[in-house]
Amino acid sequence: MAARKSKLRVFALGGMEEIGKNMYVLEYGGDIIVIDCGVAFPEDDMLGIDLVIPDFSYLIKNKQKVRAVFFTHGHEDHIGSIPYLLRELNVPIVGTKLTLGLIETKLKEHNLPQVEKIVVSPGEIVEAGVFRVEFIHTTHSIPDSAALAIRTPVGLVVHSGDFKVDYTPIHGKPIDLQRFAELGREGVLLFMCESTNVEQKGYTMSEKTVGSVIEDIFRASEKQRIMVATFSSNIHRVQQFVNAAANHKRKVAIMGRSMVNVIKTAQELGYIDIPPNMQIDIAELKNYRDEELMIITTGSQGEPMAALSRMAASEHRQVAVKPTDKIIISASPIPGNEKTISRVINQLMSKGAEVIYEGLMEVHVSGHAKQEEIKLLHALVKPKFLMPIHGEFKHLKHHKQLALSLGMKKENIFLMGLGDVLELTEETAKKGAAVPSGRVLVDGLGVGDVGNIVLRDRKHLSQDGLIIVVVSIEKETGQIISGPDIISRGFVYVRESENLMEEAKNTVRDALNDGEDTEWSYLKTLIKDTLKEFVWIKTKRSPMILPVIMEV
Amino acid sequence: MAARKSKLRVFALGGMEEIGKNMYVLEYGGDIIVIDCGVAFPEDDMLGIDLVIPDFSYLIKNKQKVRAVFFTHGHEDHIGSIPYLLRELNVPIVGTKLTLGLIETKLKEHNLPQVEKIVVSPGEIVEAGVFRVEFIHTTHSIPDSAALAIRTPVGLVVHSGDFKVDYTPIHGKPIDLQRFAELGREGVLLFMCESTNVEQKGYTMSEKTVGSVIEDIFRASEKQRIMVATFSSNIHRVQQFVNAAANHKRKVAIMGRSMVNVIKTAQELGYIDIPPNMQIDIAELKNYRDEELMIITTGSQGEPMAALSRMAASEHRQVAVKPTDKIIISASPIPGNEKTISRVINQLMSKGAEVIYEGLMEVHVSGHAKQEEIKLLHALVKPKFLMPIHGEFKHLKHHKQLALSLGMKKENIFLMGLGDVLELTEETAKKGAAVPSGRVLVDGLGVGDVGNIVLRDRKHLSQDGLIIVVVSIEKETGQIISGPDIISRGFVYVRESENLMEEAKNTVRDALNDGEDTEWSYLKTLIKDTLKEFVWIKTKRSPMILPVIMEV
Repeated sequence: MAARKSKLRVFALGGMEEIGKNMYVLEYGGDIIVIDCGVAFPEDDMLGIDLVIPDFSYLIKNKQKVRAVFFTHGHEDHIGSIPYLLRELNVPIVGTKLTLGLIETKLKEHNLPQVEKIVVSPGEIVEAGVFRVEFIHTTHSIPDSAALAIRTPVGLVVHSGDFKVDYTPIHGKPIDLQRFAELGREGVLLFMCESTNVEQKGYTMSEKTVGSVIEDIFRASEKQRIMVATFSSNIHRVQQFVNAAANHKRKVAIMGRSMVNVIKTAQELGYIDIPPNMQIDIAELKNYRDEELMIITTGSQGEPMAALSRMAASEHRQVAVKPTDKIIISASPIPGNEKTISRVINQLMSKGAEVIYEGLMEVHVSGHAKQEEIKLLHALVKPKFLMPIHGEFKHLKHHKQLALSLGMKKENIFLMGLGDVLELTEETAKKGAAVPSGRVLVDGLGVGDVGNIVLRDRKHLSQDGLIIVVVSIEKETGQIISGPDIISRGFVYVRESENLMEEAKNTVRDALNDGEDTEWSYLKTLIKDTLKEFVWIKTKRSPMILPVIMEV
Repeated sequence: MAARKSKLRVFALGGMEEIGKNMYVLEYGGDIIVIDCGVAFPEDDMLGIDLVIPDFSYLIKNKQKVRAVFFTHGHEDHIGSIPYLLRELNVPIVGTKLTLGLIETKLKEHNLPQVEKIVVSPGEIVEAGVFRVEFIHTTHSIPDSAALAIRTPVGLVVHSGDFKVDYTPIHGKPIDLQRFAELGREGVLLFMCESTNVEQKGYTMSEKTVGSVIEDIFRASEKQRIMVATFSSNIHRVQQFVNAAANHKRKVAIMGRSMVNVIKTAQELGYIDIPPNMQIDIAELKNYRDEELMIITTGSQGEPMAALSRMAASEHRQVAVKPTDKIIISASPIPGNEKTISRVINQLMSKGAEVIYEGLMEVHVSGHAKQEEIKLLHALVKPKFLMPIHGEFKHLKHHKQLALSLGMKKENIFLMGLGDVLELTEETAKKGAAVPSGRVLVDGLGVGDVGNIVLRDRKHLSQDGLIIVVVSIEKETGQIISGPDIISRGFVYVRESENLMEEAKNTVRDALNDGEDTEWSYLKTLIKDTLKEFVWIKTKRSPMILPVIMEV
């Protein structure tokens, strides 16, 4: 476009200084490619919000430039926002077979028209504008994960995706370290590397190590029914449980919508192997003895609506937990979920079931690289510039420290915020002007219609409830002809606080009678101020006060 | 009282199948004693609630029997509810010097009349009705902690309080293992033993081990200002930081209300030793260079109003965080606080400060016994019966398993719920009828006036807000003379949803016009149902709908 040579612009619309909604953008001249398009889960203060997605406005504004969206793997924090992006722009999506299979299910649920899908295998290269994107096989807690090597006019960019260095994965090959080494030898301009576990010393154990623990548990469960809760996307984990069940001649039943969906997709695409006649329906459980059964279910995070939580709360229609059950929670709590998981464990145990969870036995390993693995990738890729990604500020900062410890130059490491643009030439990198970025809240069908004012009101209502004061006044004279009446919700239990509410009504009535004006806004302020003070003195609470004045 | 010989009745009003609000009761004939009277912090679903206290109704009903409340130590989950109990009954309180010192501050804040206070030293015995209560010195994360040996007409009961086996505490003596051994030799009928860390293998490290880590940090902070956040009640920890500061010729400034209060009490009572001229006021910070300063502050749990959180958010009036600060968070996250602490760490680090927290360095040890220490106490006390206390169901259950592994008989171990009564004779123990128990919610000045209905309304309001529909009708004819008007809060951002709100109003108006009745309750139901359906179809949300009909 411009006469002078363009710079490569690299920035994040999600996943920077935060966990979740990963989304990265590369722009050169008239071409843009996007890497991942994930969701985040709402923070505690986002009351009533279902999902958080990135602010796409930069991409919508530059619609005609966007050549493709590339996906590194099929986790929600990398694919979950794609239906919302595809509503705004029509663009091909590119990923490995399983990743696109999982996206397909999602697009069907959203009734989205067919978009162009490009399925790639590791080693393959896809061209998109000036960019040539190569998929590199990695290992992670979902099969078919990939890193990306992106050839740009100014040099090679490597994006790690989410990864761990697993030499003995359950399905497929180990991470393709040789390819990283070759790219490093060739010369990498920029390394965008994930930071999730960068604070943790050592190596993450191989997924395979969980297998022997599972086998031990099965061997020690002769007369018990076994129930397993894990992430539905952790197909390797599910496979290991299926293998153990097969060894011990147990049938497998699958519960929970996302578990059923993901296993179905994985089976169709050949990523999970359940022997013929082994899988049974929930309705068939009663035809088997406890020691012939394994149930795989959602709910490893204590999610209130998940199958395990409903069983724990005795609210599941089809399956009741028994004292002879052995329940394995094969997952770590995602920060923030510790208490809900504990509640589910307590409920299950108080029904007499035996519950095995992290801390008691090694029934889970992480899918993310720890310090030594991250160092290994750095040593192979040997980038000129580093942009730590996928992490809160503390993770990005520790990633920087790790890179410094490997001898990287301070000025070659870039800690970026959302929307911060890194501009690269063949030789240089520096921060440029930022692009619009942020979070968009999804509540029901509404995308972005719940903003700070609405959230502030929800917060206020959640703390002390509300009081509505209704008064009818005569339109001409301003004379009160009905009320004040008082209605409250979420404030006090009205039956036990009749006196308080009666007093409140009288206080407002007196104030209105003494009022010097009959002007509508004056009356509103008078009611608000009078009642607020009365309620604070009596209760030390601050409910929302809504005066409603009807002119008749 | 009764002609037949009485049984000893033992039960919990708090701290059983839950963490927090510890409160245990021993009753024999006409005498009751209480052990501890703590608060719990509200669960996530207790919106707007400040504190949770035990249901005291059994004690209020049996007021004349209650001889004394004994305290094992001064943590909030053991002393925090005492002001609420003392409002209901006048009874002596008994504890060690520091424990009663901390309670005293609390009673002053609540403007409570002087109650009888009995200060005891370890080894001393206090008589209360038929009970003779001996205090035994233990070690925990607050000084002056005690276990209780209670001589009852049917035998000896030992209550562990909160403890760890620390051979090298910072202040005072190690836990008095010999006394536990002597009591065990004498014969213990019932052991009530805490279960907080029973799921964790091995031993908890001595508080002293933190000291050498602190010293290392100070040595590596030559030009930096040091800021420390820890629990205000962890006076040993504060002492260790003060010692390090003294070694390195740093002054100490104290921030945060509870930190100031607790250190003041501890100083007055001789539990902390700050050299003369070492303590400075916040206002004097500017007179010293960074390397001459240490600030001790509240906020180790990321509490939004605590000093550290306000500094992190740049909202503190007196102290601003600088890139040259080194900030040590010397505490573990209490489950549920992980995310708020992370937020504070990220904010501090993005101001350039160096932040040291658990996981990076060993700047914290627990105050609770792990498996090997609990086994040690069991081996010394050798009780006939065991009642695991202080724990969620999973902890109590694991405590039972631990006792079984030590050879205890299954039928001699009692897993109790809140209010479950254990009835003991000299030879036997069995569960009797339960007493009333539960949780009482404190919100502002209200104690117990927020119940499930109010919480359900707050929850509903917090999720989707509310819509108020106001209609005025003519009293005689039932004719609509004004409205419907619609007001919403916490639902959608009204300015951007004008069409939606206008449509909603029209929908309600049409329904009212088509209505077959002008009866008040019919109209209400009609408005609710019509609007609920309309809003759900348009937004997939379920705000609270409040029809207000004014008759004029």
